[in-house]
Amino acid sequence: MLTIPWSRTSGWGQPKIGPRQDLSFDPLAGVLQYAVTCFEGMKCYKDEQGQLRLFRPNKNFDRLKRSAARVGLPDQWDNAELLDLLSKLLSLEAPIVPAGDGDNLYIRPTLLETSESFGIKEDAFASEALLYVVTSVNLGKGLYASSEGSGLRLDACDKYIRAWPGGTGSYKLGANYGTVSVAKQPGFAMSLWLHTDGKEAFISEAGAMNVWIIKEAKDGFTEFITMSLDNGIVLPGVTRESIITLLNDHASGAKAFPVEGMPKNIRVVERDISMNEIIEGLKDGSLKGMFGCGTGVVVVQIGLIRYQDVEHTIPTNPLIKLLRDTVTAIQRGRVERDDWSYVIPEWDGLAHEHDVDGQKAIA
Amino acid sequence: MLTIPWSRTSGWGQPKIGPRQDLSFDPLAGVLQYAVTCFEGMKCYKDEQGQLRLFRPNKNFDRLKRSAARVGLPDQWDNAELLDLLSKLLSLEAPIVPAGDGDNLYIRPTLLETSESFGIKEDAFASEALLYVVTSVNLGKGLYASSEGSGLRLDACDKYIRAWPGGTGSYKLGANYGTVSVAKQPGFAMSLWLHTDGKEAFISEAGAMNVWIIKEAKDGFTEFITMSLDNGIVLPGVTRESIITLLNDHASGAKAFPVEGMPKNIRVVERDISMNEIIEGLKDGSLKGMFGCGTGVVVVQIGLIRYQDVEHTIPTNPLIKLLRDTVTAIQRGRVERDDWSYVIPEWDGLAHEHDVDGQKAIA
Repeated sequence: MLTIPWSRTSGWGQPKIGPRQDLSFDPLAGVLQYAVTCFEGMKCYKDEQGQLRLFRPNKNFDRLKRSAARVGLPDQWDNAELLDLLSKLLSLEAPIVPAGDGDNLYIRPTLLETSESFGIKEDAFASEALLYVVTSVNLGKGLYASSEGSGLRLDACDKYIRAWPGGTGSYKLGANYGTVSVAKQPGFAMSLWLHTDGKEAFISEAGAMNVWIIKEAKDGFTEFITMSLDNGIVLPGVTRESIITLLNDHASGAKAFPVEGMPKNIRVVERDISMNEIIEGLKDGSLKGMFGCGTGVVVVQIGLIRYQDVEHTIPTNPLIKLLRDTVTAIQRGRVERDDWSYVIPEWDGLAHEHDVDGQKAIA
Repeated sequence: MLTIPWSRTSGWGQPKIGPRQDLSFDPLAGVLQYAVTCFEGMKCYKDEQGQLRLFRPNKNFDRLKRSAARVGLPDQWDNAELLDLLSKLLSLEAPIVPAGDGDNLYIRPTLLETSESFGIKEDAFASEALLYVVTSVNLGKGLYASSEGSGLRLDACDKYIRAWPGGTGSYKLGANYGTVSVAKQPGFAMSLWLHTDGKEAFISEAGAMNVWIIKEAKDGFTEFITMSLDNGIVLPGVTRESIITLLNDHASGAKAFPVEGMPKNIRVVERDISMNEIIEGLKDGSLKGMFGCGTGVVVVQIGLIRYQDVEHTIPTNPLIKLLRDTVTAIQRGRVERDDWSYVIPEWDGLAHEHDVDGQKAIA
């Protein structure tokens, strides 16, 4: 566990790496009273050479800054320094990182307000905060594996609305998750979040994934369609962005898709997707598949949507597996793509540590 | 400080009253990661006889149950038992409860998930939770006092949207507060939250208050208009409900307004209020005043709204002070109204306590 305290008066304090332990808070701390907390989800992979790898870690750090600013938490730090600290933590945990296909060490950076956040304040910004990182072996592997079969079963939810323009849907805040977990229905992997313009229901995210549909366009192109980021309803996912880049570069001819099998005539479209479009696309056969993507699941096929008591079966599409295999191969260093896969340098923690307040502190 | 643990397997545990102290949580606890937390705001008043009084405490306990259910926290308990425990805590704190006009002991019941809330769960409900109550002398008194002058200055905010249908605006969740605090502008007491139907901007709450306008209707009646609860955007405030009851009973003749000065021809209207209606009402003179209400401020005059760079001055209205004085008089037991003011029975804590785990436990 890595902890880094922050205070408005003295900035970031001494980082410490130590065993995972409980954290203590004032009963009126901002995180406890007003949900002043944000987080990230990252994964560490062990490659065939035994090296540890992270996937585009600076993307997560930048998003954490953006989330932090949204709830009045500190949003200024050097990503390179944070990456160095995280790398040291992961180096120490290397023995427990599994190396099998689908295996990973899930990483949860969390940033929250520890200061009292009560009553009338001069401004809305935290005076004290804590950034910490804990890890968990193989979180999300269950969902990843379930994509092997007929895909995830989703319950389209119009009772609870996850996000709306002017809200916080595009920020990775705890507040976006606890408030919608009650929607979970037995027999379904997760909820498919809907939002409406007053006339029609549109899809936004599924569980904590970005959602895509694959459609055959009238000009014969295969369209990969996902919700636009414009109205601030969906999270700007790192996997989402990476898939867009891979597909766009392939379509434009800038860089061929790194694994064979992606057709040439493809197109990425970022726009709203209505439930009606999905239902009509199933009827006329133009809907060729549907998937979710995110750090937890990487890429996972969506097999069924229950919407207003009707279960709609979504066709499988081999391009979904191709996308998953490709992103996975890049994450695990089997396929190279720019600087997306970051190899964690080896570090001998014991040679550098010194004891501060009973924990290992690192310079 | 009162603490009562809960677990899914054994239900509510041993309540303890002890000195305020830090609380410890697993770094992956639901409250830290996913904002699984809700709270209440209550006030304890010391009356002229030195008795401690609460205002309609069961209303707060019922609302806490409703909030808890919304985020998967335990929502079953006996209000009478909780009132008894709270009364014991307040009895012990009696010496610090101030007795002056506007003075109070603010009470913050908080209920949050202490169990790990991480990864894929079978259902969305907490396995362990903690209910605790802390107090603070005179929270909100500053705002209460500021109503003596020209009223609060509000910044009408259309950048951040506090709540929306299908969201959590009508629940007292931490998640509703931390996500909008960044909207606070210097020189303004709080934000006036807006929401839109795509065409027009409507007001919802101001800061953490319910909002009212006073209008002269075409039939000569004085209308007290506040946002309806129907679309789930605003909090069902206890002060709001009490004012509605007082005014409706007066208008219907069921019970006269308990303090002299309220005209006979009044009407309560619960409906949306647009910014245009406010601006037009200021132009044609039909807008006769505006106020906020809530546990913190009781009733407070709104003096100015800045909206799209224009500052709109709102007229003062003596009925606002009448409402404030009336609610305050009921809260302090100077005026009786049904069972709204609850007198806390005296309790000799020392005679009943026994030591459990180093804290005072009460049977």
